[in-house]
Amino acid sequence: MNAKIQDLISQLTLEEKAGLCSGLDFWHTKGVERLGILSLMVTDGPHGLRKQKQDADHLGLHNSVPATCFPSAAGMASSWNRELIGKVGEALGKECQSENVSVLLGPGANIKRSPLCGRNFEYFSEDPYLSSEMAANHIKGVQSQGVGTSLKHFAANNQEHRRMSVDAVIDERTLREIYLASFEGAVKQSQPWSVMCSYNKVNGEYASENEFLLTKVLRDEWGFEGFVVSDWGAVNERVKALQAGLELEMPSSAGVGDAKIVAAVRSGELSEETLNLAVERMLSFIFKAADNSKPDASFDATAHHSLAREAAHESMVLLKNEGNILPLRKQGKIAVIGEFAKNPRYQGGGSSHVNPTKLDDAFEDMKAIAGGAAQIVYSQGYKLDSDEIDEALVLEARETAANADVAVLFIGLPDRYESEGYDRTHLSIPDNHRALIEAVAEVQSNLVVVLSNGSPVVMPWIGKAKAVLEGYLGGQAFGGAVADLLFGLANPSGKLAETFPVKLSDTPSFLNFPGEGDKAEYKEGLFVGYRYYDTKEMEPLFPFGFGLSYTQFEYSDIRADRSAIKDHETVTVQVTVKNTGERAGKEIVQLYVKDVQSSVIRPQKELKGFQKVELQPGEQKTVTFVLDKRAFAYYNVQIGDWHVESGAFDLLVGKSSRDIILHTTIEVESSVSLPVSYHRNTTIGDLMENPLTADTAKAYIGRFGFDALLEDNPDMLLAMMRYMPLRAMVGFGQGNYTEDMLADDIRKLNAISEGKVNVTTR
Amino acid sequence: MNAKIQDLISQLTLEEKAGLCSGLDFWHTKGVERLGILSLMVTDGPHGLRKQKQDADHLGLHNSVPATCFPSAAGMASSWNRELIGKVGEALGKECQSENVSVLLGPGANIKRSPLCGRNFEYFSEDPYLSSEMAANHIKGVQSQGVGTSLKHFAANNQEHRRMSVDAVIDERTLREIYLASFEGAVKQSQPWSVMCSYNKVNGEYASENEFLLTKVLRDEWGFEGFVVSDWGAVNERVKALQAGLELEMPSSAGVGDAKIVAAVRSGELSEETLNLAVERMLSFIFKAADNSKPDASFDATAHHSLAREAAHESMVLLKNEGNILPLRKQGKIAVIGEFAKNPRYQGGGSSHVNPTKLDDAFEDMKAIAGGAAQIVYSQGYKLDSDEIDEALVLEARETAANADVAVLFIGLPDRYESEGYDRTHLSIPDNHRALIEAVAEVQSNLVVVLSNGSPVVMPWIGKAKAVLEGYLGGQAFGGAVADLLFGLANPSGKLAETFPVKLSDTPSFLNFPGEGDKAEYKEGLFVGYRYYDTKEMEPLFPFGFGLSYTQFEYSDIRADRSAIKDHETVTVQVTVKNTGERAGKEIVQLYVKDVQSSVIRPQKELKGFQKVELQPGEQKTVTFVLDKRAFAYYNVQIGDWHVESGAFDLLVGKSSRDIILHTTIEVESSVSLPVSYHRNTTIGDLMENPLTADTAKAYIGRFGFDALLEDNPDMLLAMMRYMPLRAMVGFGQGNYTEDMLADDIRKLNAISEGKVNVTTR
Repeated sequence: MNAKIQDLISQLTLEEKAGLCSGLDFWHTKGVERLGILSLMVTDGPHGLRKQKQDADHLGLHNSVPATCFPSAAGMASSWNRELIGKVGEALGKECQSENVSVLLGPGANIKRSPLCGRNFEYFSEDPYLSSEMAANHIKGVQSQGVGTSLKHFAANNQEHRRMSVDAVIDERTLREIYLASFEGAVKQSQPWSVMCSYNKVNGEYASENEFLLTKVLRDEWGFEGFVVSDWGAVNERVKALQAGLELEMPSSAGVGDAKIVAAVRSGELSEETLNLAVERMLSFIFKAADNSKPDASFDATAHHSLAREAAHESMVLLKNEGNILPLRKQGKIAVIGEFAKNPRYQGGGSSHVNPTKLDDAFEDMKAIAGGAAQIVYSQGYKLDSDEIDEALVLEARETAANADVAVLFIGLPDRYESEGYDRTHLSIPDNHRALIEAVAEVQSNLVVVLSNGSPVVMPWIGKAKAVLEGYLGGQAFGGAVADLLFGLANPSGKLAETFPVKLSDTPSFLNFPGEGDKAEYKEGLFVGYRYYDTKEMEPLFPFGFGLSYTQFEYSDIRADRSAIKDHETVTVQVTVKNTGERAGKEIVQLYVKDVQSSVIRPQKELKGFQKVELQPGEQKTVTFVLDKRAFAYYNVQIGDWHVESGAFDLLVGKSSRDIILHTTIEVESSVSLPVSYHRNTTIGDLMENPLTADTAKAYIGRFGFDALLEDNPDMLLAMMRYMPLRAMVGFGQGNYTEDMLADDIRKLNAISEGKVNVTTR
Repeated sequence: MNAKIQDLISQLTLEEKAGLCSGLDFWHTKGVERLGILSLMVTDGPHGLRKQKQDADHLGLHNSVPATCFPSAAGMASSWNRELIGKVGEALGKECQSENVSVLLGPGANIKRSPLCGRNFEYFSEDPYLSSEMAANHIKGVQSQGVGTSLKHFAANNQEHRRMSVDAVIDERTLREIYLASFEGAVKQSQPWSVMCSYNKVNGEYASENEFLLTKVLRDEWGFEGFVVSDWGAVNERVKALQAGLELEMPSSAGVGDAKIVAAVRSGELSEETLNLAVERMLSFIFKAADNSKPDASFDATAHHSLAREAAHESMVLLKNEGNILPLRKQGKIAVIGEFAKNPRYQGGGSSHVNPTKLDDAFEDMKAIAGGAAQIVYSQGYKLDSDEIDEALVLEARETAANADVAVLFIGLPDRYESEGYDRTHLSIPDNHRALIEAVAEVQSNLVVVLSNGSPVVMPWIGKAKAVLEGYLGGQAFGGAVADLLFGLANPSGKLAETFPVKLSDTPSFLNFPGEGDKAEYKEGLFVGYRYYDTKEMEPLFPFGFGLSYTQFEYSDIRADRSAIKDHETVTVQVTVKNTGERAGKEIVQLYVKDVQSSVIRPQKELKGFQKVELQPGEQKTVTFVLDKRAFAYYNVQIGDWHVESGAFDLLVGKSSRDIILHTTIEVESSVSLPVSYHRNTTIGDLMENPLTADTAKAYIGRFGFDALLEDNPDMLLAMMRYMPLRAMVGFGQGNYTEDMLADDIRKLNAISEGKVNVTTR
């Protein structure tokens, strides 16, 4: 430990130490003036700074200082662009420095278990690898500026429904492979200054007092070095939380939590060492923040707005483009329809709500781009504050569309549909948006739909639209970015970071979301997102990883540098990607791994690599992926570690999870033997599969005297013997084999297999 | 207790008592000659007697005495005919008496969790109500003849894969509502003489030593009065099994099990009272069997064959009949194609394999029916012992079909595809059957397919067939019954007792079947069969309850005798059904109940009544259903009882689970209050829902001072407050509410609600 911090701890009173473990108010940690310990500010994020003004309400959901509003995480993840999200992170860090903010609360790495979750717009993906890569690069960007992040909401906060009392019941393998993996990569790669625990319980324990999560996994296994902060109000029992590894309670508990800590130390319930360790972590943070503070920093709002526009370009996903209706030609009359064109929905509700420095307007930007070459007309179409169909507005929009060459409809989900605090109950757009499409489609076949929404919607109307551009919640430059994409000033390059289902009941967690009372059982297990749709062979509306471009890409020449590896080695996989179209563009090349045969239940395939490459027309590049053990492993709960089962793995490279273009196969050999222990209910078949005990197994079959079956029904005999437990040799009509012989044989079998056997893929 | 039995027990030695608790050999219980205790015979069933000849192998899967082979359970259940299965049971009982058999081992009431289960042909349905009704009436029929049954395999033996070591992990509500309910109705209605425990573990305990199943549920709750016998070889630890409630170990353990019991009594590990109770139950059975024995009984094989033909008629399901190609006209040339037409697959492999008294032949029966009016020609099409396509046979079949007016293809699953002992891994028919359809369809559009199989197959070829008759495993009269149905001498009246999926991956348990190693987790929970397809809104190939007729039925005039009931009352529902076609026929009218709104997860609807009615052309009848509490209840694990949540229930009457014709709604009011206990993490929303505490809840909201949010985001505020735990009032920025106040308030709230509150449908 830092000697200075050690010295400080020795000078702090018990009350001061306890005080450092909770907030001063809603947004500040406590200082200790006599010892030069500063009070620091944290603010909500993650896609923009939300620093409360002095006169704001204490919960502070409005009235924040202006800051650049970047696309929210759902959109940023659709960029699949590590560098870009890093640049956005840097910009956010600069804005924090200019406002003297020490920690930006985010990013959110929760997995999108259901598209209904009200906070999905703040989360990246249904896939833990993509999510952790995005989170890691966001964190690196912010922290490169000397500002901390708080990776949230750890863990399994996958619904808003009853979020403060619900227990997320998740088997450990699913927890490890899906829900924790999304945090794991980010922690290991980018060491966030803090991690924020979630409101909910995980397998019976509140996340805030979950020692398994906060200490065993986060610190002991992943090597997290920062401090853990509670989500605002997430502390249930303060002392238990501290013991579990939660350093900072937020916001202020008005002294209640501190007093409990003090009392617990005095009573001996809590050791002072535990408190000292927490204080040490808090002081480490406070001094690091102070050391990195840039009191005179400012930021370039114009440059950040441009970055927000760039980010918005890459965050949007072109889902449909029949007959290449897009990009729009700058000619004729273009009807722009829908309130969102002038009054965009560009961010979600709740703690991430930013007061933007500037706000683009799609209609104005489209006019600017078109110049005089095309006539751009507008019609409102619907009102934002109601779902009710306003017949007059619809009629007017229809008229406008009928008299144009093409209609661009701006529709999606109004603010009240998606927010922190509650989940959706259906996946439909409002009736008045739907009615607008229907009405316009009747008179205008050149129909382009631009969607603003934080999470998937169903599109029973999609047959009426020639093009659909998924805009997500694109941040303050949403409008300008849409205009650029519509006219081809930018080429769409986003791909979906989540599956769009045909209907709600198709979704993996449908039968169990959001649970019963305070229990949400994750019965779909590992089968989240495309892992479910792939394995169940269900056709989604749009698959994970899908997105169109204005140009075309060809893949060729997949090669792995080795055809077989040990599990502790790596394999390098390369493919060639060529832009065969007429425009520059970016392609997101995806690599999925499939375990050809497995003794454990595994999804059909899993994303283990992706690269985004920019290519000029005719240009080609080599894309490289390096795969290590983790790319082939599952989490084995028996040994409490990641494990690769020896055997063949398919490496699948494609444009989306459902558009695999190239594949190759490699063999991976395990270097770890799984423990095996034979017992009276070990089956003869299991002995047969171990080369060391197979002969014994064959001899055992003779003991059953089922020879007659061999003629009659050999398939059944084989199956019966395969599944027969050893104990059946005692007494199954023969009587010449005793319990003592069985016990002795089991001892011998365990000796033969030396207590360990390398289980191979069956 | 019977004084005679009491007296006998006092005269038995410890060894003799232990001896009565295991078999003498494979098929007999032990007698005690000096006390006049007889040794009795049991034999496999359930759709025919399988009594071993003296010289048979000891496992005895062949060489049994001739007996009538009725359709196996999968087919019988498709009849939905309680009386018919009762008559079949009576016939089986008579055959047992004629062979001095005291117990026929069956029926099997296991639920069809997956169509892959190798033993599904022996089970009735995916629905517990239908399954239990079929089982109950089978049992009543057999036992009416003074012969016992053994309801099997209790419980959760839903796969053959690793059946002797696998642990079926099932949440209690699912176990109660689905897997146990199928046995429960049969035990309560018909009191089988014995119940056979299954091989597998259920929630960690072998069924053979599962006190929860064998004693708490079976005897204490359901009132079972018979004895429990192990499936052959299912006993793991003999003493533990006896203590759990397993009286009879089968087959003989060559004295091993008996010796363990004796030793355990001597050592004090097992109380002699426990053993005496088991002996009492065995003796009760032995004397009951002796009292009911009819040593000179014989049976009328011809009459039983006729009954088998009648049962086969009703067991088959007409799945498709485009352009009314069926019934066949007795004219022109009819090509009968496929080895199954002459060499039928009419039963499954394993313990239920019967040596039939007679075997119908579809080809011969078709010729007999057609007389000279139509020319019936035959072509083999494929060989049974291989899946390989025999091009010569296919060509010949194609030729035969080309020269006919209509082709009837007999295809399906050969013996080796389905058997006790192993599960299927796919749902396809063999390649050579598939190739035959393809080839014949090229030259003959009048194509009728007759399927022989014990469990669903996928039908990617169905577009090529005008008619499909699902024959199941129709017993020894299969061939004749098919001929009758094809020519309209009988009118198809079966309906599916299980869903036919479009593809394997659509099936509810697909992601978790057959589990990992020795663990099969029933993660689909309650969503088995149509409960899954309905709730997930997935289109099956053919839905549960579906089947066509050669006539038409109209439903009208649904009426319930009351619009509201208390949960301990009954409601009577009636509908009128009319035969509007030209032929006599039978219709299966189905009643499903849907809980309109529920606080717990429930399937979309559940079968709660069915009636099969016979109607002459133009005739109409009133069909009556009486629904009691159970029809509306779910199993509440908190109170350990069935519970009805007050509210509206839809009563849906239809021709299948997907063809609901009429519906009405009734209100059911609960008479039971669920216990409620408030605590620090009770949410404010939960208080609001209780009228007694709602005012308090409203007052609490003021404590949070979130007034500003009211303007900014009222939806979010509402949600936040709804989900806010009471403990958040302490310290959430306010500081004027203490832990002591909270504790006091919780005490008061619990007092206000008087510890009990009637939770209503939300």
